[in-house]
Amino acid sequence: MTRLPLALTMGDPAGIGPEITAGAWRALREGGTVFAWLGDPACLPASLPVKEIETIEQAASVFSNALPVLPLSLSAPVRAGVPDSANAQTVIDSIARAVGLAKAGVAGGVITNPISKAVLRRGGFPHPGHTEFLAELCHVPGREVMMLASPMLRVVPVTIHVSLREALDTLSEDMIVETGLTTALALKQDFGFDRPRLAVAGLNPHAGEDGMMGREEIDMIIPAIERLRAKGIDVTGPMPPDTMFTESARQKYDAALCMYHDQALIPIKTLDMAHGVNVTLGLPIVRTSPDHGTAFDIAGKEIAEATSLVAALRLASVLSENRLNHKEGLPS
Amino acid sequence: MTRLPLALTMGDPAGIGPEITAGAWRALREGGTVFAWLGDPACLPASLPVKEIETIEQAASVFSNALPVLPLSLSAPVRAGVPDSANAQTVIDSIARAVGLAKAGVAGGVITNPISKAVLRRGGFPHPGHTEFLAELCHVPGREVMMLASPMLRVVPVTIHVSLREALDTLSEDMIVETGLTTALALKQDFGFDRPRLAVAGLNPHAGEDGMMGREEIDMIIPAIERLRAKGIDVTGPMPPDTMFTESARQKYDAALCMYHDQALIPIKTLDMAHGVNVTLGLPIVRTSPDHGTAFDIAGKEIAEATSLVAALRLASVLSENRLNHKEGLPS
Repeated sequence: MTRLPLALTMGDPAGIGPEITAGAWRALREGGTVFAWLGDPACLPASLPVKEIETIEQAASVFSNALPVLPLSLSAPVRAGVPDSANAQTVIDSIARAVGLAKAGVAGGVITNPISKAVLRRGGFPHPGHTEFLAELCHVPGREVMMLASPMLRVVPVTIHVSLREALDTLSEDMIVETGLTTALALKQDFGFDRPRLAVAGLNPHAGEDGMMGREEIDMIIPAIERLRAKGIDVTGPMPPDTMFTESARQKYDAALCMYHDQALIPIKTLDMAHGVNVTLGLPIVRTSPDHGTAFDIAGKEIAEATSLVAALRLASVLSENRLNHKEGLPS
Repeated sequence: MTRLPLALTMGDPAGIGPEITAGAWRALREGGTVFAWLGDPACLPASLPVKEIETIEQAASVFSNALPVLPLSLSAPVRAGVPDSANAQTVIDSIARAVGLAKAGVAGGVITNPISKAVLRRGGFPHPGHTEFLAELCHVPGREVMMLASPMLRVVPVTIHVSLREALDTLSEDMIVETGLTTALALKQDFGFDRPRLAVAGLNPHAGEDGMMGREEIDMIIPAIERLRAKGIDVTGPMPPDTMFTESARQKYDAALCMYHDQALIPIKTLDMAHGVNVTLGLPIVRTSPDHGTAFDIAGKEIAEATSLVAALRLASVLSENRLNHKEGLPS
């Protein structure tokens, strides 16, 4: 089978997206991970060899010599570090076009450069963020699940960008079950685990110590684990949150289901800040993104590291290939 | 100045305390960290050379040849892995006597072997745990603060052994200020930092993003930081919890003040499970303990690692010496 080229979005052109795109192309030009960038070539570093293409299928043949670009036009000139909502529509078009290519089966997946929600909102963008917009474009709003993946750990927060109190108030048995099902499916079809092993974190210190420190484990998490097991999924937990991310504990599962944002993000970022990749599960397409923002404060200074974007592109390539193999392996 | 010998309690004699005590003595017999063990020599491994002493001052002269023991008598025979509340009083006496030696200024500090709260409670022990009992013995109940220290990180949870919901309900500006003051004082007098640097964690994802995800940072944490600064303490924060424990972030502070148990314990245990030491701040004596429990399931099997107890003894020795120097350095 052939690998499909990946579609990398422009992101906010005033952020570090253009320069890390250049860095990622340099890091990957010989590596077998082929991608096309969807954006306005005027905002790329002048030193970068660029080749405009008409269809993404042409990316592979030019990739070792130049960054393949599916061109879009920005409305306003770009000043690094100074975002301009006049360019919001092109930023959005880049995302929509990348998703279209992946849905059509000609791109292996979508990798998104960082955007600024505040800038896009001023430009009329109604979605809370990148991920929700992608779910909408794929006609599966609400089904999206966030995973952070690094070489040492995969974590999936069940509640995400809400206050800790709201996380406690909204966490439910159903949310844990649905997130667990989506995660197990993705581990199988995208990550290539035949029999994925999930570890479910407790919510309270020591996972509540039999109800001594909170009842959520008894009332919500254990019933959710039992429902996941009834569906044939290999699940352990509820695990005491503080000891489940040690080196020896991590060997026993393929992904950790966490109850709130920092329970998931503290361990993965503490272990490895540079190589974390954000993966959106639950979509009909493969989507990854670097685990950092637009970094307007350092944009254009040529100091931004492309490490996380390179990791996001490499992982998308693996996930895309696994998903194609998985589909081909199914009985027809 | 001379170093004072340390007082190591017996802990539950049916747990791993006796064997890790033997392991710690073997690891430290030539190392300059001298301690006496307060317990019944009958529960120690038969292969361990033991020397009963009458006063802790005798510990230094025997330490390189045998474990110095200040003897206590257990009421019931010990079976490894099978705790017996008939022995609770001797476990308690060991703690009380060690604290007495430290308060009298003849022991440099108290290091506690693990106890079982459930076993002691059946034996009539009314305190919620070790630390509260020590604070009571020192006549400073409620002043105790828990720090976890490893070679890579020091963390202090402001709320500790309560459910996450109760942590949210009880956390207050005053608690953060008081814990911060106790921590800053201990970093100075015990850890030897001339001008300790505290980092205060936010409670919510991204430290709330200016109130977008929770208001505790604005209503409680920032005012607490300002009060600590007004007292001349070097404080940064509120820090986004997920990025404050990375290698580069950790260089910028000497201890992290955390809002709840797992915000503190996830990063320290994820980074280094074996060398974490529990330090009780806010007491008139130095007190450390290994960061694990009685481990009844593996007691007597000679597989328990003394690593954390060794680290607890070494750290107590350093803290005790610093505290004595600090006192001696004060103008009289």
